[in-house]
Amino acid sequence: MIWGEWLAAKAADRAERGLTRRLTPRAVDDPTIDLAGNDYLGLAQDAAVQMAAAHAALTWGAGAGASRLVSGTLELHAELERELASYLGQPTALVFSTGYHANLAVVTALADPTCRVLSDAHVHASLIDGVRLSRARVTVVPHNDVDAVRRGLGEAAEAGERTLVLVESVYSVLGDAAPLAQLADLCEEHDALLVVDEAHGLGVHGPGLVASNGLAGQPHVLVTATLSKSLGSQGGAVVGPSTVREHLVNHARPFIFDTALAPASAAAALASLRLLRERPQLSHLVRRRVGELAGALAVEVPDGAVLSVPLGSPEAALAAQAAALEAGVRVGCFRPPSVPDGISRLRVTASAGIEDDDWRRAVDVLQQVVKEHR
Amino acid sequence: MIWGEWLAAKAADRAERGLTRRLTPRAVDDPTIDLAGNDYLGLAQDAAVQMAAAHAALTWGAGAGASRLVSGTLELHAELERELASYLGQPTALVFSTGYHANLAVVTALADPTCRVLSDAHVHASLIDGVRLSRARVTVVPHNDVDAVRRGLGEAAEAGERTLVLVESVYSVLGDAAPLAQLADLCEEHDALLVVDEAHGLGVHGPGLVASNGLAGQPHVLVTATLSKSLGSQGGAVVGPSTVREHLVNHARPFIFDTALAPASAAAALASLRLLRERPQLSHLVRRRVGELAGALAVEVPDGAVLSVPLGSPEAALAAQAAALEAGVRVGCFRPPSVPDGISRLRVTASAGIEDDDWRRAVDVLQQVVKEHR
Ligand SMILES: Cc1ncc(COP(=O)(O)O)c(C=O)c1O
Ligand SMILES: Cc1ncc(COP(=O)(O)O)c(C=O)c1O
Repeated sequence: MIWGEWLAAKAADRAERGLTRRLTPRAVDDPTIDLAGNDYLGLAQDAAVQMAAAHAALTWGAGAGASRLVSGTLELHAELERELASYLGQPTALVFSTGYHANLAVVTALADPTCRVLSDAHVHASLIDGVRLSRARVTVVPHNDVDAVRRGLGEAAEAGERTLVLVESVYSVLGDAAPLAQLADLCEEHDALLVVDEAHGLGVHGPGLVASNGLAGQPHVLVTATLSKSLGSQGGAVVGPSTVREHLVNHARPFIFDTALAPASAAAALASLRLLRERPQLSHLVRRRVGELAGALAVEVPDGAVLSVPLGSPEAALAAQAAALEAGVRVGCFRPPSVPDGISRLRVTASAGIEDDDWRRAVDVLQQVVKEHR
Repeated sequence: MIWGEWLAAKAADRAERGLTRRLTPRAVDDPTIDLAGNDYLGLAQDAAVQMAAAHAALTWGAGAGASRLVSGTLELHAELERELASYLGQPTALVFSTGYHANLAVVTALADPTCRVLSDAHVHASLIDGVRLSRARVTVVPHNDVDAVRRGLGEAAEAGERTLVLVESVYSVLGDAAPLAQLADLCEEHDALLVVDEAHGLGVHGPGLVASNGLAGQPHVLVTATLSKSLGSQGGAVVGPSTVREHLVNHARPFIFDTALAPASAAAALASLRLLRERPQLSHLVRRRVGELAGALAVEVPDGAVLSVPLGSPEAALAAQAAALEAGVRVGCFRPPSVPDGISRLRVTASAGIEDDDWRRAVDVLQQVVKEHR
């Protein structure tokens, strides 16, 4: 069987390179302190958010039953979209089933083979897949290299190409921020559209870095977001001008040909948004914790809630991760080939949702473990 | 602004061709009888399923908090995967955030530019996008044309190409079934892999048409499914050999780089599965209703729960849809360019979830409306 042999060869290759990934199901009463996930504000476990999800499942149903364009759009989705747009300071929002769908949708509906896309070297898989699907002409620009973007925009303008620039407000592995103000200026100057993925910016920085940079509502800046990280739920969104929203409703295949977001997830995201508005101290707390952890681990304070802790080798990173887990703290481990820069590291996320005692314990554990494995 | 002009031109073009799509939010107390969605068994509105969703949100959290490979895999996901595999008679299952993700994942992780893909002309957008992303060599075969598949397989075998054949067990617009037994034989003979999307087969035909054709567990037949139609929830799955599951865990980007399915949605799908096992009469009821409706509308009885009612023109189809809605019954309307065969039609779905009285009223309304607009 050709396929059987091919699958076996792939498996052998993974095994030989020590890169086999396995799933480890988590128990409901797992006592591990989680510094690996992206529930930055702890809202997935917030009682009010959980209640909102439960209530929506009982009120609206367990699923939406159809695609958004058939009969799957609920008033609940419309309410979520209004409040998302309002919180982010944007005219409109459109909600998707995942952040992945939102990114695929925005790139494939806007870009085509006549388009130029300037894509930061560190952007997320979903944006990269969107670019591949769009068949646009793509230039991968070195990470956070404003000059390279300027050159790319100049060349595209000269060639008369419609141009998209793809970045994240806070990058998911390194936790560093994009130079949004400069990029937005460049895009305005060159008639390009800047797409900013706020997956790791929203919540950690209140309404996100597009908003805090005064760029919300600018017609050449478009935001994508996930409901699955700081908002503690599932889903994604594109937030920006109504002309873009209407375009996506009409042309984005991952929107049109997909069942609408489940009511429980929509309601949870909405409840989280409302909490976020009421309690800006949640964002402050997570950022304070980031600072504290960065101090303890002797790494630079990142812009987001993701700390990258470089270690000397893939083996050291794996051993450090295992030692932390042994001591009750889960962190992420990234190593080649799945790191943008080839450096093995721990990925540690801060969260406002961890109890003070647990937080202090986690910081102590990680300080010790990193010291021993550096 | 170049983008502003481009968006305006696209909007003007849609408007001119009468093809602008709009979202109409549904109220929680909307009295319309829905024969447009895909909640074929009414399980999205089943009290036990809704309770399971609510309970999971309260127990596990509003979101899973991380990707499946980091800390997002819950025992709940593992349980759902075990029961899905068991119900479908397959060795393993892997759950995704949407059916769209499942289809993208399976095609992009298995196919590559050295591969041949034979894709039925009517397959879903998510499979098509998967093929585009994979950069495989694709041959679109005429709908349900077994001879064309045979020729394609012969040519691919001669060229030494690893080959995938993509079909749906029941097609989403026409409601007709694929000749699965013949296709599976051909694939076995030619060392090809048959991927069957059971989105509209699962539930309506109990464990689906792969199972009822005795093909479950065969190594050259792979199933994808959605949790968002008969299971009344959200999400998707790939169900088949463990070697494929492991391959997807390691290589499928829409699995690896996506937050895990929300607990409420996983629990709802699990509860639906259990109901389905206990109450095969749900599948019988929806198929009986399909037969009844097909009789009333004088169309052939389809294999799935989707009835396609061809009408003379796009205008007639739109007018019939509006008249039905006016009389309290929502149905879908498909017209060029979004129909595979250029024929304008109503798309009417039967559901076991509608009360008997409402069902009879809906059949009467549609009989009248179709008579008037044919
Ligand atoms: C930067 C970024 N964008 C998009 C996504 C996709 O979001 P989702 O998990 O909601 O599909 C993720 C993570 O999963 C991400 O890190
Ligand atoms: C045949 C088919 N496959 C896949 C999908 C995608 O499933 P989901 O809505 O769960 O993303 C759909 C419908 O949405 C479908 O009709």
